Amino acid sequence: MQLFLGIDGGGTGCRAAVANAAGAILGRGAAGPANIASDPAGAAANIIAAMEGALAEAGGGEIAAAGLGLAGANAAGATERLRATLPFARVTVVTDAITAVKGALGAGDGVVAALGTGSVFAVQRAGMVRQIGGRGLVLGDEASGAWIGRAMLAASLRAVDGFTVMTPLLAELVEEIGGPDGVVAFSLRARPADFAALAPRVAQSDDPAAMAVMARAEADVAEAACLLRGGDDLPLVFLGGLGTVFAARMAGRFPVQAALGTALDGALMLAREAA
Amino acid sequence: MQLFLGIDGGGTGCRAAVANAAGAILGRGAAGPANIASDPAGAAANIIAAMEGALAEAGGGEIAAAGLGLAGANAAGATERLRATLPFARVTVVTDAITAVKGALGAGDGVVAALGTGSVFAVQRAGMVRQIGGRGLVLGDEASGAWIGRAMLAASLRAVDGFTVMTPLLAELVEEIGGPDGVVAFSLRARPADFAALAPRVAQSDDPAAMAVMARAEADVAEAACLLRGGDDLPLVFLGGLGTVFAARMAGRFPVQAALGTALDGALMLAREAA
Repeated sequence: MQLFLGIDGGGTGCRAAVANAAGAILGRGAAGPANIASDPAGAAANIIAAMEGALAEAGGGEIAAAGLGLAGANAAGATERLRATLPFARVTVVTDAITAVKGALGAGDGVVAALGTGSVFAVQRAGMVRQIGGRGLVLGDEASGAWIGRAMLAASLRAVDGFTVMTPLLAELVEEIGGPDGVVAFSLRARPADFAALAPRVAQSDDPAAMAVMARAEADVAEAACLLRGGDDLPLVFLGGLGTVFAARMAGRFPVQAALGTALDGALMLAREAA
Repeated sequence: MQLFLGIDGGGTGCRAAVANAAGAILGRGAAGPANIASDPAGAAANIIAAMEGALAEAGGGEIAAAGLGLAGANAAGATERLRATLPFARVTVVTDAITAVKGALGAGDGVVAALGTGSVFAVQRAGMVRQIGGRGLVLGDEASGAWIGRAMLAASLRAVDGFTVMTPLLAELVEEIGGPDGVVAFSLRARPADFAALAPRVAQSDDPAAMAVMARAEADVAEAACLLRGGDDLPLVFLGGLGTVFAARMAGRFPVQAALGTALDGALMLAREAA
């Protein structure tokens, strides 16, 4: 029986699924991280391990084609190096962002806003995906969890300095983090995930400063969505840990849809296309 | 003869001056860095070395009182530790920002905007200094050189993504830094000084994107100046590598004055006050 392999590999883990020609998933597997830019050898090993798990669950078979969505696949030379080590005759390797878009939209046109620790936006038109954003917190990642947390801490220092009023949530954060000097010290060692850890509290709060930060985030998402929709009536799908937050906020402004499937579903789509 | 010692110690060097009771500087000295938070022992040694140089040039004498403006003096416990190691009966230790303000304004009321790699704003009223900003690039340092450089690179990626037009200077920067991926990679390793190295080109340019970044920076400086002036007709003094840029831009909006003296002059003022 001809099988199709989908791989969704990110910085924290790698998931595999094996499906038949009709699209039914026959087996699943998982393994460690698969970032092919930062650890090519480890990524290749984890891809194979996840595949073997899925194949075993499926009861064995021949991989006709594979679709891989991998973190780091946009790094120069990374996919070529990986492809040479893989035992598949037909294989398509793209970033995990692309498989997420394919999974969320299927073959249809639409816009995807992925809002987690970082943020990235993409549009699919006639099967072609164009991605914007996703530049990291220093220069971008607008409306991401990290951006929201950092914006709230910046707002707290502006309130300390007297530019704006000190709201209850700002005061609470400054107190928790050890006063203004503690906030500065935190900012110097914080990774994006550390800022993002503050985002759920900001997103759920009716504190005026939190609402102002969320309004700015929503404006940034709307700007990206408008740019990518380009005046066409394309659906908007939200992904990521903050996806539901923005989906709820923006359902009145855009035709918000639920994702059709996962990044692994997108990888399986690529595998069938590669066959 | 009774002498007064002023010390201006920063992260890159330490300057000393010895003056007589009439305020005439009789000798100067210099030594290595004097950040008393990051290297207390090295800072103390460099302060003494700079002082000895100044005293030697002055032909010797007794230090009646010392005023020290030192980087890191706002860190908890730092000034107490230093004071215990210094051989001066009367000594005042403050941050180098405070001595910069005292030097710039003398005893008069006014506002100081220090715009270099970072930014910090202060007001002096009746000899009391209140400082705002200076929180570092992650959460603040608005209108600083690092902020300007970073804003310009963020604008370059927004132009790449199609949010705004790609102006000549944005295109030039993206090309120089190795394309959009190169800009992202640069942002991940860049220190504030690396971003600030781009600022002079931005400040001098008539490129539309550069002018937009500078307009935002000017608005931030104006907001800080308005907050600190509090409706009073206080002069505004600009310090730092970008001080002349903003002084020229804002002379029509605020009563811009030249600095009366340096941070070392401010330190000598403190020494005379301590006596």
